[in-house]
Amino acid sequence: MIINNILVASPIYLELKTLIGKEELHKNFRFMSGEEMTQEDLGWADAFVSFNIKSTYDYSHVKWVHSLGAGVDRFLFKKDWNEDILLTRTICSFGQRIAEYCLSYILKDLQFHEQFQELKHQKTWRPNTPKLLNEQKVMIYGTGEIGQTTAKILTGLGVDVYGVSLSGKEKEFFKEVMTVDLHFSRLSGMNYIINTLPLTEQTADLFDGSIFRHLSSAGFFNVGRGASLNEEALLRALSDNHVRFAVLDVFSQEPLPEEHPFWEHPNVHITPHISAVTTPDEGVACFLETLKNIEENKPLPNKVDVNKGY
Amino acid sequence: MIINNILVASPIYLELKTLIGKEELHKNFRFMSGEEMTQEDLGWADAFVSFNIKSTYDYSHVKWVHSLGAGVDRFLFKKDWNEDILLTRTICSFGQRIAEYCLSYILKDLQFHEQFQELKHQKTWRPNTPKLLNEQKVMIYGTGEIGQTTAKILTGLGVDVYGVSLSGKEKEFFKEVMTVDLHFSRLSGMNYIINTLPLTEQTADLFDGSIFRHLSSAGFFNVGRGASLNEEALLRALSDNHVRFAVLDVFSQEPLPEEHPFWEHPNVHITPHISAVTTPDEGVACFLETLKNIEENKPLPNKVDVNKGY
Repeated sequence: MIINNILVASPIYLELKTLIGKEELHKNFRFMSGEEMTQEDLGWADAFVSFNIKSTYDYSHVKWVHSLGAGVDRFLFKKDWNEDILLTRTICSFGQRIAEYCLSYILKDLQFHEQFQELKHQKTWRPNTPKLLNEQKVMIYGTGEIGQTTAKILTGLGVDVYGVSLSGKEKEFFKEVMTVDLHFSRLSGMNYIINTLPLTEQTADLFDGSIFRHLSSAGFFNVGRGASLNEEALLRALSDNHVRFAVLDVFSQEPLPEEHPFWEHPNVHITPHISAVTTPDEGVACFLETLKNIEENKPLPNKVDVNKGY
Repeated sequence: MIINNILVASPIYLELKTLIGKEELHKNFRFMSGEEMTQEDLGWADAFVSFNIKSTYDYSHVKWVHSLGAGVDRFLFKKDWNEDILLTRTICSFGQRIAEYCLSYILKDLQFHEQFQELKHQKTWRPNTPKLLNEQKVMIYGTGEIGQTTAKILTGLGVDVYGVSLSGKEKEFFKEVMTVDLHFSRLSGMNYIINTLPLTEQTADLFDGSIFRHLSSAGFFNVGRGASLNEEALLRALSDNHVRFAVLDVFSQEPLPEEHPFWEHPNVHITPHISAVTTPDEGVACFLETLKNIEENKPLPNKVDVNKGY
């Protein structure tokens, strides 16, 4: 595939321009924000680099689309993708980032950060022995790069990690991998539940009462996509203590609307979609490597299966 | 050494009695709280198992003293120890516990838990990219079992870990180990400082202005002993931002007095000496193993060098 004209449309286009400008690529580039982009730009481009596409535009002239994020639902979910167009996605330190994000809130819970903070306000000395990671069981939904890196890090710290995937295929760093259909009976023994799944038709609204009612005072983490969670079912599960607390980085609507009940819920932690950020450095490194692989006809480990949706 | 009569004096004596009672030891035991103990009990005992000794009593009849804690300063520091008496200490999951304690507060910092909690109160969506562990440098004072396990766990997560010890001898899991005399120039590059040192004459008041003034907005952790920290020097370092925040599990006076300025300091986290608790299960396991090793004349990895003080 010959790529000459590359259109980069992103809120971080200035940083990307600076970094890409340091390379001697002998390509034509246009850098702009998504708002500035016109149909003329897309008609000019062989390649389009962005976090998303806009359904009102025609992308048929483009040969390669590169997602700056790990998730490609904004390209594929409930959209018709022209299969002639190659779609690749960014793979970088997302697994490490999400693992550290989840680990931080698991340790906050095990080490009683909130209780000791409250006791400090009361100037009260009241010992309570923290719990150890090697006494914990965690179920991770999604055994791809992000889920597996999270499993690797937690397993390395002594946690028993179980996985849920479409195939149920065994993967390193998981004690056991199950399909969704066969995993329900294992949920009651889990201390923490982590969703890393991409948004597809199979994962939309996956986390509803049918999963939550099996949980017994677990911590629930959503670092996948907001639309995989039925938010009302989570609120019920929190009030019934099937879920003891939730750590949410993604939401069906972002930014989370000001009137949303999550903001005021004492047992919901909210972060603004920061658990797996594409930094300009890492985004450019992955883009450059993908471009090189394409031009040299090498395998593309980050090529998206547009039928699977990830 | 023949051990027949064993005196266990501890606030957790009931739990210890239950657990030891399950073993068929063919020894005579007395279990009691420290307050109930009399000189007659000590005259009867071959072995004394406790967290501390009382200077008003005569321990000369006892052949073996086993500390239920890892630290033995309450047996040795500013006390005259009769060198004919064997002193052993508890070694169990302290390293793992202290590592998880420190890691929890490092991740709380890197993942901006407090900032996101504050933004949640304000119902404000404001992204900020967490920092990664593999960008951090940590200096651990003490390269014994606790310091080294902490180094192993942090190194495994990508942190650059440096050590400070009396000998400066290289140890696995540390990039470099320095003596106190030679380490000052390295302090300004450190993100976090962790004290795991035992209390001895060399470590009393070690953390004073001479260390703090080299730090540049670091996090300071004390999981060693309270008397190793000059508390006024820490307060000055906090107000000068040499220390950005402190996480303190041990204090020169415990419980921390109600009027102590640490309670109201916004950048001091206080926990009530819980980072390395001896659980009854682990305490008994270590005691039983030590008893077996003594009776079988085997090496004692947990024997205290009473001249070194640890």
